[in-house]
Amino acid sequence: MADWEANVRRVVPYTPGEQPKRNDIIKLNTNECPYPPAPGVAKALLEFEADKLRLYPDPAALELREAIAAAVSIPEHPVAADQVFVGVGSDDVLALAFLTFFNSKKPILFPDITYSFYDVWADLYGIPYRTPELDERFRLKKADYLTENGGIIFPNPNAPTGLMENLDTIEEIVAKNPDSVVIVDEAYVDFGGVSALPLVDKYENLLIVQTFSKSRALAGMRIGFAIGQKKLISYLNDVKFSFNSYTMNRLTIACGKACVEDRGYFQEITGKIVATREWTKQKLAELGFTFPDSKANFIFATHKTVPAQELFENLKTAGIYVRYFKKPRIDNYLRITVGTQAEMERLVEVLAELVK
Amino acid sequence: MADWEANVRRVVPYTPGEQPKRNDIIKLNTNECPYPPAPGVAKALLEFEADKLRLYPDPAALELREAIAAAVSIPEHPVAADQVFVGVGSDDVLALAFLTFFNSKKPILFPDITYSFYDVWADLYGIPYRTPELDERFRLKKADYLTENGGIIFPNPNAPTGLMENLDTIEEIVAKNPDSVVIVDEAYVDFGGVSALPLVDKYENLLIVQTFSKSRALAGMRIGFAIGQKKLISYLNDVKFSFNSYTMNRLTIACGKACVEDRGYFQEITGKIVATREWTKQKLAELGFTFPDSKANFIFATHKTVPAQELFENLKTAGIYVRYFKKPRIDNYLRITVGTQAEMERLVEVLAELVK
Repeated sequence: MADWEANVRRVVPYTPGEQPKRNDIIKLNTNECPYPPAPGVAKALLEFEADKLRLYPDPAALELREAIAAAVSIPEHPVAADQVFVGVGSDDVLALAFLTFFNSKKPILFPDITYSFYDVWADLYGIPYRTPELDERFRLKKADYLTENGGIIFPNPNAPTGLMENLDTIEEIVAKNPDSVVIVDEAYVDFGGVSALPLVDKYENLLIVQTFSKSRALAGMRIGFAIGQKKLISYLNDVKFSFNSYTMNRLTIACGKACVEDRGYFQEITGKIVATREWTKQKLAELGFTFPDSKANFIFATHKTVPAQELFENLKTAGIYVRYFKKPRIDNYLRITVGTQAEMERLVEVLAELVK
Repeated sequence: MADWEANVRRVVPYTPGEQPKRNDIIKLNTNECPYPPAPGVAKALLEFEADKLRLYPDPAALELREAIAAAVSIPEHPVAADQVFVGVGSDDVLALAFLTFFNSKKPILFPDITYSFYDVWADLYGIPYRTPELDERFRLKKADYLTENGGIIFPNPNAPTGLMENLDTIEEIVAKNPDSVVIVDEAYVDFGGVSALPLVDKYENLLIVQTFSKSRALAGMRIGFAIGQKKLISYLNDVKFSFNSYTMNRLTIACGKACVEDRGYFQEITGKIVATREWTKQKLAELGFTFPDSKANFIFATHKTVPAQELFENLKTAGIYVRYFKKPRIDNYLRITVGTQAEMERLVEVLAELVK
C-alpha cells in the first residue's frame, strides 16, 4: 500500500440494480415507471434554449421548489416553497439528510430489512446504527423505535417488501422521539399509500422524502425532494450549500417543473400501475407465490417450491430482469417491479412455465 | 432550541456569486463563459427522446467519461476512461475528493487566498487545515507545502488571483508528499494555463480536477471531472457510490459528450476569451488599475485611488455585476470575469467614468 493510501476513506459502496445496455429486455429490476414522463417534459425540452446552459442555474432551484410545493399541498395542509428541499434524486437528499441530522453518538435506527443504502450512508459518515428486526410478517415493531436513538429512518411503504405502516404508528414514533429527527422515506407512497405530509405542520422533527424517479417517471432526470418545517429545511440547506451549491441543472429545473405540474397525467399513470399490480398479485397467487400486500410499484414474492435465485436466473435468460437480494431472511424472494400490463402478462406467462 | 437540534450539524455555508434574475445586466461575477455551448449541445438536446427519462441513467456515465478521456488525451499521455471521475460540477467532485482523500488527523494545506469553498468543505467534514500565506505578490511559497500535512489542494491558476504556478513547482510538491493526495484544481486552466495532466502517469497521489462550467460554456449543466491514476479514481468512485449512485442525468451525459467532442469550437471560444482578456488588461492598466498577470477567464484588479467596494457598488448601479470579496488582504480588489469584447468595452467605458 502506498503511503498516501493511509488517509483514504475506505467504504463498501451501495450496489445499484443492473442497468443493462440491451433494449430488448423487460426491465422489472429497478422500480422505474413503465410509462413515459408527462407530455410537458418533452415540450419543456423542445422549448429549452441551449444557449442558456452557459450560465449557472438558480442555486435555490426556486421554480422547481414552488412547483413541488403546489403539487403536494392540500387545502388543509398547504406546503410553502421554503419547506421544500430538492436534490439529485432522493439518494442525494437522503445522503445530505444523514449528514445533517444524524450527528450524534447514539445509534440511529432503521429496520433490518429495508432500503440497502441506509447502512452504506451510516458507514460512510461513521454514524452508529442499530437495525431492529421486522416481525415474521415483515411488520415494523413500534416498540423498537421508542428506545434511545440518534435518529430514525424507514421507508413507507417499506422496500423491498412494499408494506405500508399506518399513520398512527408513524405519528407515535415521531411524537415520542422529540430529540431525534425522524425521516420517512416515501419513495413509493404514490401507488396507493398514505403520506405522512399532514403531520409536518405538527412535528418539527419530521422529514418526508419523496422522488420523481418512480411515480413521476423521471428516474433519468434525477430529482428527489424533502418536505419539513422551515427550520428543519434550512439546516438541510446549510449543509447542502456547504457541499455543492449548484446541484439542480437548468434542464432539470425546467423539466421537473413541467412534470410535477401535470397532476392529471400523474394520477393516470399511477392508477394504471396500481391496477396492473393488483392484477399481477392475483396471477402470482394462482401460480403458488405468496407476498406481502404491497402498496408500492413492486411485488416482493416467494414461491412455495421453486427457489427465488433459480427463478431470478431463469427469468434473466428469458429476457426478464427482476431484483434478487442474497441477504438473510429475504434470500428466497424476488422484488418484481410493476411494468405495463403487457409486460406483466408476459412475466406471468414465463413464470407459469418456470414453476410448473 | 428543540431537543432534536442538538444532533444537527451546524455549518456556515459557501456563498455563491449572485445569480440575478434580470437579463438586462452585464454579468461578470461568476466566471461563466460569454459564448454559448458548442452547437452539438443544442443538437443533442433536440435529438434527445424525452421518453427515455423514465429510466435511470448509466450510474458510471461511461459515454461521458470516454468522451472526456479522448478530449484530454495527448499522444504522449493518453488518458483512459477509468482514469476519469465525473460529478455534478467540479464542486461535487471536490466535495467527494475531500471526503475520500483528506481523512487524516493532520491538517490539510491550501493558500490563505484561494477558492473560498475549501475551508467550507474542511469545516463540513471536520478536517483540520492550515492556510499558508501567499507572498505579497500572491505567489505560492513552495516551502510551505513541504511540511507535514494530511493532504494538499490549490487551484492552478489560482482563484481569485488568476496566477499560474509552473509545472516544476507543482511536480516538486507532488513528489515530496508521497503520503498525501495532492489535488490541483484546474477550473481555469484552459485560458492559456498549463495543465499538470502529463504528471498523472508518474504520480499516483496526484488528482487533477477540471470543469465544464468555464471554458466549455456549460455552467448550467453541472459537469466537473477529475483525472488520476486508476487506483486513485477507484477510491473516489467507492465513496461516490456510497453517497449517490446516479448523479449524472441522461441529458447531462448526452449534452456533455456532445460538448467535449467539439475541440474546434472549444479552441475558438477560449482563444477569443484570452484575446479579450489581454485587451482588457491593457485598458485597465491605462485607467490606473494593477492586477496579477491572470491566465484565467477573469482579472483580479485594484485601483490606485478608488476603493474596490465603491467601484463594485457603482458598477452594479450601472448594470455591470463583478465579484467583490470583503476578506483580509483582498478587500481592495475586484474579480472581473472576461466577457465578450463588447461587454468589456462597455466595462472599460463605465470604469473610465468611475475612476476619473
